[in-house]
Amino acid sequence: MALGSLGFALLRGRLRGSAPPSGTLRGAAGRGPAGRRECVLPRHEATVISGTEMAKQIQKEVQQGVEAWLALGHERPHLSIVLVGDNPASHTYVRNKIRAASAVGICSELILKPKEVSQEELLDITDQLNMDPKVSGILVQLPLPDHVEERTICNGIAPEKDVDGFHVVNVGRLCLDQRSFIPATAGAVWEIIRRTGIDTFGKNVVVVGRSKHVGLPIAMLLHTDGDHERPGGDATVTIAHRCTPRAQLKTQTQLADIIVVAAGVPKLITPDMVKEGAAVIDVGINCICDPMTAKTKLVGDVDFEAVRKKASFITPVPGGVGPVTVAMLLRNTLLAAQKVIY
Amino acid sequence: MALGSLGFALLRGRLRGSAPPSGTLRGAAGRGPAGRRECVLPRHEATVISGTEMAKQIQKEVQQGVEAWLALGHERPHLSIVLVGDNPASHTYVRNKIRAASAVGICSELILKPKEVSQEELLDITDQLNMDPKVSGILVQLPLPDHVEERTICNGIAPEKDVDGFHVVNVGRLCLDQRSFIPATAGAVWEIIRRTGIDTFGKNVVVVGRSKHVGLPIAMLLHTDGDHERPGGDATVTIAHRCTPRAQLKTQTQLADIIVVAAGVPKLITPDMVKEGAAVIDVGINCICDPMTAKTKLVGDVDFEAVRKKASFITPVPGGVGPVTVAMLLRNTLLAAQKVIY
Repeated sequence: MALGSLGFALLRGRLRGSAPPSGTLRGAAGRGPAGRRECVLPRHEATVISGTEMAKQIQKEVQQGVEAWLALGHERPHLSIVLVGDNPASHTYVRNKIRAASAVGICSELILKPKEVSQEELLDITDQLNMDPKVSGILVQLPLPDHVEERTICNGIAPEKDVDGFHVVNVGRLCLDQRSFIPATAGAVWEIIRRTGIDTFGKNVVVVGRSKHVGLPIAMLLHTDGDHERPGGDATVTIAHRCTPRAQLKTQTQLADIIVVAAGVPKLITPDMVKEGAAVIDVGINCICDPMTAKTKLVGDVDFEAVRKKASFITPVPGGVGPVTVAMLLRNTLLAAQKVIY
Repeated sequence: MALGSLGFALLRGRLRGSAPPSGTLRGAAGRGPAGRRECVLPRHEATVISGTEMAKQIQKEVQQGVEAWLALGHERPHLSIVLVGDNPASHTYVRNKIRAASAVGICSELILKPKEVSQEELLDITDQLNMDPKVSGILVQLPLPDHVEERTICNGIAPEKDVDGFHVVNVGRLCLDQRSFIPATAGAVWEIIRRTGIDTFGKNVVVVGRSKHVGLPIAMLLHTDGDHERPGGDATVTIAHRCTPRAQLKTQTQLADIIVVAAGVPKLITPDMVKEGAAVIDVGINCICDPMTAKTKLVGDVDFEAVRKKASFITPVPGGVGPVTVAMLLRNTLLAAQKVIY
């Protein structure tokens, strides 16, 4: 796939590399945005994909979609968020979602419940939201307290309002290549790959992590048929996880044209594991203490500074997959309002 | 995992090999059933896993389960099969299923419809079967005529009677590692691996084929968490398919401890693609014309005679995965009657 003009605007850092440290040729010659094949290129750092810029672009598209929808006389899309307890990270995520929704013209409401809330009461809430015609999308922020079964709550949301894509029917439809709500993080990885112009057809992809909300749907999107109702990436996909021996993981990632990491392990992916010119998408969000400053900071699962010297494309943390994930949630909410999927 | 005593009874051909052709050591030393580690073993052919024998064992277990169920005063499990049109292969499959059901004490009925049957009429039939308390399991033999949407019919069967495991909710539950009806072919591959004592934890597995009824559920079973509600194999799984370049497929299969092939391409897997001592499970069923006899015969996707010299375990075609698949359908029907899953 050629890199579209859209991709250009969203890339920063391209070709800003230094002189080749070892004088070797760059393996990814010909992968450049213009598609030209050049025999000798100086080694340079990976293009850092700005998730922040891409998210702005997607949000702009969603905003235009909302305006067009309103212009047709429809009601404004409405997102209802249920937030349980006082987990600070959850509160931050929800705040970001509400702010982003507001920015694109999506109305939102926050339903706060104490951590002692019963499963029954949560199901009553989702029931009411399911029946409320003004509510387009419903999101119950995870994790939930231990006494509540997350699966039961996810399945309590009507599939047609399930903008997180966690309902069993949306999971099944995703796996069957049918139209469905795609979990926002997986949708973000897909969108980053597509908009950056990274080819997936017949490529080797390693997805590190098998979580049901992230690793699994990413693997589904990337390996499935590009001609189906919900097109897939037609890539050869390897699913690795915590039972994968370290040496085996390295063997697999060294073969990969694209590495997607969603393991929650800082510096899991080091440069020796990465093929020259591979694309590296970092879904990890880890809060660590910086030994230099003694302050906490966010890092991904990739040894970013080292790997960027070898990869063709790389996403940073923060500012990579995260912002795009929020944008994809807004897009799902618009799709729910438009009843495009159900 | 050690090879249980059950496994012994089901293996034929073990250690019946000839003298080592090249004097090399066997790579799979220590993989033997007793778990002993021996430094020098003569090279010998793979153990041919008899699906026919394994199916007999599973059917015996199902039969005992049916008898125990009846002894508790319950009604006899009942399987309703809907068969549309006159596809000879479908008729053969259905006949085998009815015969096998009868042999284990499962009552069955066959509903035959001409190929002109409407989708509406088929849905009426599944509706009636869904509501009929005497019906434990429902199976609509695929493929269906072009004017009928298979997905609509599969979703028309109540999930709790969907012994084929094709309903979207069963697909979703399988992918979420919840109890579900596992499609019989995938269940057969799982059972063959488990009963033969082939270890999957942290092993490299390549699944060739991404069909929704075979490749996908096999990949799901093998890569997922062994500690979940529906335990998985904890293997690193690579999903390859028709978009996988030939050279890439070979690289992947050469790394694999287990190769599962469900591609429908005769002799797709040749010995140069197989690691010494790998287990090879052949799900392919291809009808070819034998150039020696000019008669048609069934073959799998593996160059059986050549690969058996290199693999540790191999399933034949016919007599491998096929018979076990029928046995797994009967087990699903018993589970449906017992309401173990829903």
